Amino acid sequence: MRFRLDIAYDGTDFSGWARQPGRRTVCSVIENAMSLVLRDQVRLTVAGRTDAGVHASGQVAHVDLPQQTESDELTARLAGVLPEDVRLTAIRRVADEFDARFSALRRHYVYRVCDVAWQADPLQRRYVLPWPRRLDLDALADAAALLLGEHDFVAFCRQREGASTIRELQRLEWTRTAGVLAAHVSADAFCHSMVRSLVGALLAVGEGRKPVGWPASLLALTERPSTVSVAPARGLTLVGVDYPADGELAARAVTTRNVRQRP
Amino acid sequence: MRFRLDIAYDGTDFSGWARQPGRRTVCSVIENAMSLVLRDQVRLTVAGRTDAGVHASGQVAHVDLPQQTESDELTARLAGVLPEDVRLTAIRRVADEFDARFSALRRHYVYRVCDVAWQADPLQRRYVLPWPRRLDLDALADAAALLLGEHDFVAFCRQREGASTIRELQRLEWTRTAGVLAAHVSADAFCHSMVRSLVGALLAVGEGRKPVGWPASLLALTERPSTVSVAPARGLTLVGVDYPADGELAARAVTTRNVRQRP
Repeated sequence: MRFRLDIAYDGTDFSGWARQPGRRTVCSVIENAMSLVLRDQVRLTVAGRTDAGVHASGQVAHVDLPQQTESDELTARLAGVLPEDVRLTAIRRVADEFDARFSALRRHYVYRVCDVAWQADPLQRRYVLPWPRRLDLDALADAAALLLGEHDFVAFCRQREGASTIRELQRLEWTRTAGVLAAHVSADAFCHSMVRSLVGALLAVGEGRKPVGWPASLLALTERPSTVSVAPARGLTLVGVDYPADGELAARAVTTRNVRQRP
Repeated sequence: MRFRLDIAYDGTDFSGWARQPGRRTVCSVIENAMSLVLRDQVRLTVAGRTDAGVHASGQVAHVDLPQQTESDELTARLAGVLPEDVRLTAIRRVADEFDARFSALRRHYVYRVCDVAWQADPLQRRYVLPWPRRLDLDALADAAALLLGEHDFVAFCRQREGASTIRELQRLEWTRTAGVLAAHVSADAFCHSMVRSLVGALLAVGEGRKPVGWPASLLALTERPSTVSVAPARGLTLVGVDYPADGELAARAVTTRNVRQRP
């Protein structure tokens, strides 16, 4: 029986999502907790394999569990076993066709930066990157708009052999609330380090080091340039993943594009 | 020349506000940073001497600095010297009559509790107390309303010799947003551990262990009973302090009631 897990975590003290020997990762902490409670090995499949230090408020995974699993009971028992920096906010039965990774239509991330050092909220400091210089919201917005649409984002990806880097960037919008700027970034999928590379390039524009057209000009490149810096993980949060309605799940084809989807 | 400091901090890694030998306290961290930047000893006077682990988004202090101090320059230089878990969000010149402690008209605190363990937001876990049993919002609200007004709160105070424990509780309102309950607590001043003792007593009502009238019945006592537990510091945040308008500062009398005002 397949279950969907909705997951939130503070990434600060995790070496990312993916299981790695000897490291504290989100996946291994959840799998170990579930294995303990269910007295059986479980294996999760996740929508977005976040990097070390990246947070999530809307991560999604799926898992196959024995027929007799009661999700309410499991939720309550896991809450007592999991550490406080990771929570399963919902566990629910889904159709067997539901695949957290391959059924996902869209991933949503938010990247937060504070460009007024003395206003940086100490209660939010684990989730907001402090930036030493003022950032120009209009320049950020103009540069971001030029990146929208379907492109080969190879200039913004840590490439893996043979994987496509063509993605459809559906939203890249900057907002400012007092000293905190937030980039709202949505795409069908993201290649590795894509959100943080896009943000890194845009911050260079925001502080006036690069012209507005510079990030979009990199879309013409066929490999990653050394001039694009990857923004630190600390400011990044996976806020949600979209899926088709239950009835349309079977119709969702598995395409090559979905094979690699790390932010 | 007198300056008002607006201060925010994550209390988790501080042994409270007040300077103590060998301890990391908010007061000593700020005083040391200011002394370093100004090359002179400074001494702060604060509105609310918060306990170990209590947070603040709206703490206020005052300090007397040399004539030539430029507050914008000081703000920028301090931001680089202070650790990230404490921020001076504003530094501004005030009238010599302004006293962060004795001019304060009102202090505002918020206490946050999550009574749905699996929904406890990992990104807010340092500021929200997890509670293992469901809490009844109506019972909390009814019990809280009976505590409003001017009373001797000795049953809810860690007493200090000779200090008055008569306070005017002006607001004690509970709200619920998803799994998070927040108590909004305002008074002219608070005696030591008063907010956390009020919350401790109300939580016993909220989970059904005590009747609605129980916390108010304690107002008749002449000493602190052992049955009132002090809620943990983690959920408590000082969110603001009210002062008279500048023109009315001199008229504000220093009364005995204001001599002790720890939460």
